[in-house]
Amino acid sequence: MRIMKRCDCIRKLLSVAAAILISLSMTAQKGWYRDKTDPMPVVNPDKTVTFRYYAPGADTVQVNGDFLSEKERPALMKNNGNGLWEFTTSAPVQPEIYTYSYIVDNQKVLDPLNMFVWRNISDLYNIFIIPGERTDNYQIKDVPHGTVSAVWYNSPSLQMNRRMVVYTPAGYEKGRGKYPVLYLLHGMGGDETAWLDFGRAAQILDNLIAQGKAEPMIVVMPNGNPSQEAAPLENSNGYNLPLFYLPKTMDGTFEESFKDIVSYVDKTYRTVRKKSGRAIAGLSMGGFHSLYISANYPELFGAVGLFSPAVSVQEEFKDNNIYRDIDLKWKAQMEKNPPLYWIGIGKVDPLYNDVASLRKKFDLCKYPYTYLESEGSHVWTCWRIYLEEFSQLLFK
Amino acid sequence: MRIMKRCDCIRKLLSVAAAILISLSMTAQKGWYRDKTDPMPVVNPDKTVTFRYYAPGADTVQVNGDFLSEKERPALMKNNGNGLWEFTTSAPVQPEIYTYSYIVDNQKVLDPLNMFVWRNISDLYNIFIIPGERTDNYQIKDVPHGTVSAVWYNSPSLQMNRRMVVYTPAGYEKGRGKYPVLYLLHGMGGDETAWLDFGRAAQILDNLIAQGKAEPMIVVMPNGNPSQEAAPLENSNGYNLPLFYLPKTMDGTFEESFKDIVSYVDKTYRTVRKKSGRAIAGLSMGGFHSLYISANYPELFGAVGLFSPAVSVQEEFKDNNIYRDIDLKWKAQMEKNPPLYWIGIGKVDPLYNDVASLRKKFDLCKYPYTYLESEGSHVWTCWRIYLEEFSQLLFK
Repeated sequence: MRIMKRCDCIRKLLSVAAAILISLSMTAQKGWYRDKTDPMPVVNPDKTVTFRYYAPGADTVQVNGDFLSEKERPALMKNNGNGLWEFTTSAPVQPEIYTYSYIVDNQKVLDPLNMFVWRNISDLYNIFIIPGERTDNYQIKDVPHGTVSAVWYNSPSLQMNRRMVVYTPAGYEKGRGKYPVLYLLHGMGGDETAWLDFGRAAQILDNLIAQGKAEPMIVVMPNGNPSQEAAPLENSNGYNLPLFYLPKTMDGTFEESFKDIVSYVDKTYRTVRKKSGRAIAGLSMGGFHSLYISANYPELFGAVGLFSPAVSVQEEFKDNNIYRDIDLKWKAQMEKNPPLYWIGIGKVDPLYNDVASLRKKFDLCKYPYTYLESEGSHVWTCWRIYLEEFSQLLFK
Repeated sequence: MRIMKRCDCIRKLLSVAAAILISLSMTAQKGWYRDKTDPMPVVNPDKTVTFRYYAPGADTVQVNGDFLSEKERPALMKNNGNGLWEFTTSAPVQPEIYTYSYIVDNQKVLDPLNMFVWRNISDLYNIFIIPGERTDNYQIKDVPHGTVSAVWYNSPSLQMNRRMVVYTPAGYEKGRGKYPVLYLLHGMGGDETAWLDFGRAAQILDNLIAQGKAEPMIVVMPNGNPSQEAAPLENSNGYNLPLFYLPKTMDGTFEESFKDIVSYVDKTYRTVRKKSGRAIAGLSMGGFHSLYISANYPELFGAVGLFSPAVSVQEEFKDNNIYRDIDLKWKAQMEKNPPLYWIGIGKVDPLYNDVASLRKKFDLCKYPYTYLESEGSHVWTCWRIYLEEFSQLLFK
């Protein structure tokens, strides 16, 4: 049979690939297709980490990232003489997920040898992981996995179809039972995908649920930018770059429209449709949103999580419906059937003092809340930990 | 009220962002946060496209991508004297989605000024779009959108939990009706996300369904690499780089396990559970899979789409269950209730001759099929068009 002959076609394809390899390869460093299983950067046996970047003509090459302390970064790399710049951390790097990039002659570039890239806000970062207990629940393990869906819903308040990400726990599709819902909000400039990548929300929930530490729950991750239908490339703006500071993010618009999201979720999923079955939490701007949404709709949420929240309202918006009379709203929220109220912030977060003022106010009024003060600043490292902590307290 | 004072916290955040801007900015080119709405590369009024890369110390900078003809690429960029390298296409660029990257002193790098990056196989590319009729259905438009879900299923044949992507059309969640299913398979080295990004499968189906040109259907995009649970970063290998040539991809293993996928889908979704309600199609290796799966299970699929398919079986596997007696299997498939059989290939595809042999065989046996010979080679440009064409013929 002629067409069953030895697979020339595949060989042809392989030789096309080989040609690409050759054209991209060079003597000083590995090309993309050559040693794919070698991770970059290199984690050495003593847990220091080595970075290498090939740039024979560059005057300076630096490596930047959150694995370096603030005073260390960016770190200058050393030219080893054949065009390869190298840097090894001075100490072992602790288990965590880190982001990094290079700066070649003052221009930020990604690592050509690391295909793992996440988008945070409008910027791209390479990532690497140092495995350990801290990162255990951020990894995909051999446990039942929930489903992650990108879903479009109609928002009558915003007169817009909008996209959100929904995590339904393992077993949801097969079962008939009702599930509680955690609404999980991103920070300024982020969007509905932020908690999935950097936040590891699906992995954290998969693992905590499998370990019996968290209740099976639906997690709804909406887009908190009311001017935006969806994340970049996923909206009808097409391939235009998004603005970093989007309009209407902290003027009450999103908070007022939030009922559209709850209404869609309660109509579309098998949810526990009462206060004890709903939680809301968010980071930074999402903490701000969670604070004011939960205060304005005290009968809606049985748990509130503020992760490094923004607290203060800009002068020009402070008379808006959502923000005015906040003391009275808190009183109503806290004095009758108060929610599980959880606040977390890093010791060196620029929002630390604002959160301290909020706590002082709550303390004076004897409003109950749980408080976690962690190491670290205004970063995902903290927010992943806060999600792990907060989600274990919910719906018990 | 002390905590309602003007928002110092946000200003603090903004000044942190500003500090980042300053540290990343430079005189010769725009930094990430400076003019976010300026797309890169620049599409000029005459539809030529200009690329700029800042690399003052480089000896050569080239731009590479599928917007250039094979003989033009990679194109040498010209140093304008202040470290900025520039290239403008010699002619207008036709409407399409294109991929590109730079080569700086022989090293492939991404565009630091373009945040739109897709992964194809194990490699990253920047993308840009020239809007026009051709790309109309690849864009997110103001039409009802389907839901895109990443779903884990159990494969008893492979003894593995595996991930697939499922598109359910707009209205699926609200309705009660049953939907036909298109199984859509990726090529060698690809995975369950390939058809979503480069393939624009969700956008093509959203738009064709909204235009009344395609029937509402579920599209199932499994992972065709039987050794792999899921795409890179989405599997329990964590952050290790994947192999390009994965084992067991074209030895019959995936084809034999395919019943697990159909079984899961028919159990989990409201599907039309008969031959007339199922189609299978794929590109390159996925075309190969579609060819042999449909021939081995002739009662399963009422439509078969081979997009630039690999056809020939490697010598060492030709006696495997799935591949042997293929003539008899085709006879059974084609002579009684034959499927809608569709083949598409580009005129300069390296697999062209293999597909010509397959067609010759089908012609001799008078097996009915539809054939589209397009411009182009073994590229996504073709496969998007084939999906547009094929999906409009289904389930009528």
